[in-house]
Order: sequence, then structure tokens, then C-alpha cells
Amino acid sequence: MDTFELAGLAPGLRYKLLAGLVVPRPIALITTISEAGIVNAAPYSFFNVFSEDPPVVVVGLQAKDDLSPKDTARNVRLSGEFVVNMVDEALAVAMNNCAIDFPPEQGEPDNLDLPLAGSLKVDVPRLAGSPVALECRKITMMNFGAGRDLLVGEVLAIQAREGIVDPKTLRTEYARYSPVGRLTGFQYVRSNDRFELVRESFAAWLEQKSADDAAS
Amino acid sequence: MDTFELAGLAPGLRYKLLAGLVVPRPIALITTISEAGIVNAAPYSFFNVFSEDPPVVVVGLQAKDDLSPKDTARNVRLSGEFVVNMVDEALAVAMNNCAIDFPPEQGEPDNLDLPLAGSLKVDVPRLAGSPVALECRKITMMNFGAGRDLLVGEVLAIQAREGIVDPKTLRTEYARYSPVGRLTGFQYVRSNDRFELVRESFAAWLEQKSADDAAS
Repeated sequence: MDTFELAGLAPGLRYKLLAGLVVPRPIALITTISEAGIVNAAPYSFFNVFSEDPPVVVVGLQAKDDLSPKDTARNVRLSGEFVVNMVDEALAVAMNNCAIDFPPEQGEPDNLDLPLAGSLKVDVPRLAGSPVALECRKITMMNFGAGRDLLVGEVLAIQAREGIVDPKTLRTEYARYSPVGRLTGFQYVRSNDRFELVRESFAAWLEQKSADDAAS
Repeated sequence: MDTFELAGLAPGLRYKLLAGLVVPRPIALITTISEAGIVNAAPYSFFNVFSEDPPVVVVGLQAKDDLSPKDTARNVRLSGEFVVNMVDEALAVAMNNCAIDFPPEQGEPDNLDLPLAGSLKVDVPRLAGSPVALECRKITMMNFGAGRDLLVGEVLAIQAREGIVDPKTLRTEYARYSPVGRLTGFQYVRSNDRFELVRESFAAWLEQKSADDAAS
């Protein structure tokens, strides 16, 4: 095995290892709105869901070099609201373009001609081209290190493109969703190469094991 | 769009939506050790990396119905240590079997004949069959709702199977790693269907836009 003690590595190298190895990560293309009404959109893959009761998502935010907040963090501090737009194959190029360092007075959706649409429970609009939008309200922000904060949010409502969620069972139809995951560097992964693993009960496992032992 | 207000949905249905739609998720097969020395292993996909300085991972834990902690949470409360074993295609079946409800006095690695190996910075062993192990120390545990806790850990060291991390650049070689991601239900995803998106600077984007505008 190759071994790496993180205390001895520069942060940039730690980032390379952690972002390279903890994969695939779900992608949140987060929209927020400034006090001047400018809609910002930025992609985050230090992101996941962590609870359903209450429904909690967490996002890892990074401050600027002078430790002032970037647009997303600033807007969430001011309004307490954000929308997580999930990213499918069709939205991947636009998501990547939202990472361009546009000046803060220019919103990414406006610059990139990405149409917006209304949300149900928050004032922040969603991206109309996103397959799934999670409307969120900030619960808290936790600071770790000089420039790293964890944004913890409650999901108030979900909007999903028709056909993705089966209306009877609420099951996700992945063939109609085509979500994209984050690796690192310039690399991403599609989700078409799926497989199934059936979860067994202890009783079923014991029974199978007895049968296997008897046969051997 | 289909719309779902989460306050009006039972927690089980919220789980189905959130776990179905926030994908693909990285999988942490977490090993811990009890005061009696029993090594436990359990899979979590409410998990991600959130920071490199300090190096922070977060895991969503769920308590038992009587609100007592499950083995992983109990062991982390007692020892403050855990190891995140990442899951590749070869380890996927064992990972799924670690979710079987074995009695707590029986460790999953022992029951399933999964060999253990030593860690560098913690007393908890890693799974020898795992491609990448993150050795972690608890920073804090945050409670959300009756049975949901967020375990926040610092990564002290990483062990990776030779060939996965390029020793010169520290880049991850995904073809040699083959990490598996979580969808929901019985569904998982491989990471072989990769693609690249090159991130542009604002200056490069402006230049391209001017060229496009001139051409149209």
C-alpha cells in the first residue's frame, strides 16, 4: 500500500488526494440571489444528503484568499436560502461553465443564457434546465480551518422533471434522470453503468451459509 | 415539473426521494472497534469529503428505533476513531453483505471472512481488501432530529493500493481504482463511463464569446 500522512502534506496535495479518492460525488449546481437581485450559480461536489428527518444537505464552501466569502456563501449569509440544482448529462457543460470566474456583478445564468424558473418555498429561482431542484433554507454554517465552512441546510421542497420520480412508488427512474457524478480534475462520470446488489436479512444469510457448509 | 413539499411527506417517503435523487454518492465502508475488541464494518453513503485544510469527512448516522446508537456510532463515541474503507467493484458484494443485521457480538469482517490490516495513525484496522482507507479521528457529532447524527471526522492518514495514486503527481488513476457509487434501493453504479470537461478562465471564455459573436 502507498501511505500518506496528511499532516505532512501541503493543503493542495491533500485536496488532490481527497478529491481524487472520495468518489463519485454528487454535484450541486447551487443558485442563490444577491441583495441586488443578481442570480448566482456555482457547482459544488463537496456535497451530499445526510438525513431525511429533518431533511438535511451539507455543502463544503471555500472562502476567497482574503477569507471574504464567495458569492454563494455571501448570498446564503444574507438571505438564508439556496437551491441545489442537480446536474444531468444535458446540463454538464453549463455546470462546468458556471465555474468560470465571472465578476460578481455578472450572474452566471445571465451570462450563459441559462433560463430560470420559480421555486415553491424560497425566493431563489432554480435553473429551468436542471432535472431536479432542492429548495433549501440554511440551518447553520460551521467553520473548519481558515477558509473552509460547512453549510448545513434543510430541504423544504423538491421539484423534479416529469418522468424521473415514479408518482406511485416515488422511485427514481435513473434511465430518465441520467445524473452526472464528480471525480476530480477535468473528470466526471455518467451513471448508466448500473448494477444491483440485493440486501439480505441475517436469517437468509445464515440459511445460505448452512447450505454452503453442507455442500462443501 | 413534479413538486414535493417535504413537510407533508412521511420520513420514509422523504428518504426515498432524497436518497434516490442526490446521486451518485461515494460509499464509506466504515470499520470501528468495540471495547471488547470486536471489529465492526458497515456501509454508509450519506458521506463525503468537505475540506482539505483541515481534512474533513462527514458521515450521516442513524440511531436504532429506541434511539440507542448502532455499532458504528457506539464505537466512535467510545474510541473517537474510525476508518473509511472506500469500495471498488471487487469489494462491492462484501460491502453489501456488511449491511446484514448481524448480532452486535459478531463482527462483520469475522463473519464474512474479510481480512483486516493495520492502520498507521489509529487503532482501528482497515479492510485489507479495500483499495483506499482513510484513517479518521472524530472532531464532533451533531444531532439533527430524533435519530439522525452527523459524524464529523478529521482524516489523519490515507492508505491506497499501489497503482491507484500516481506517486509523482498524486493524481488518481480511475482505471486502476474502479470505485463504486451508491444510487438507491438495490442499485449501484460503476465509474468506467467517464468524460472530461475542461474548465475555462473568464478571459478565455470572453475571447471565445467574441469570436462566436463575430462569426454569427
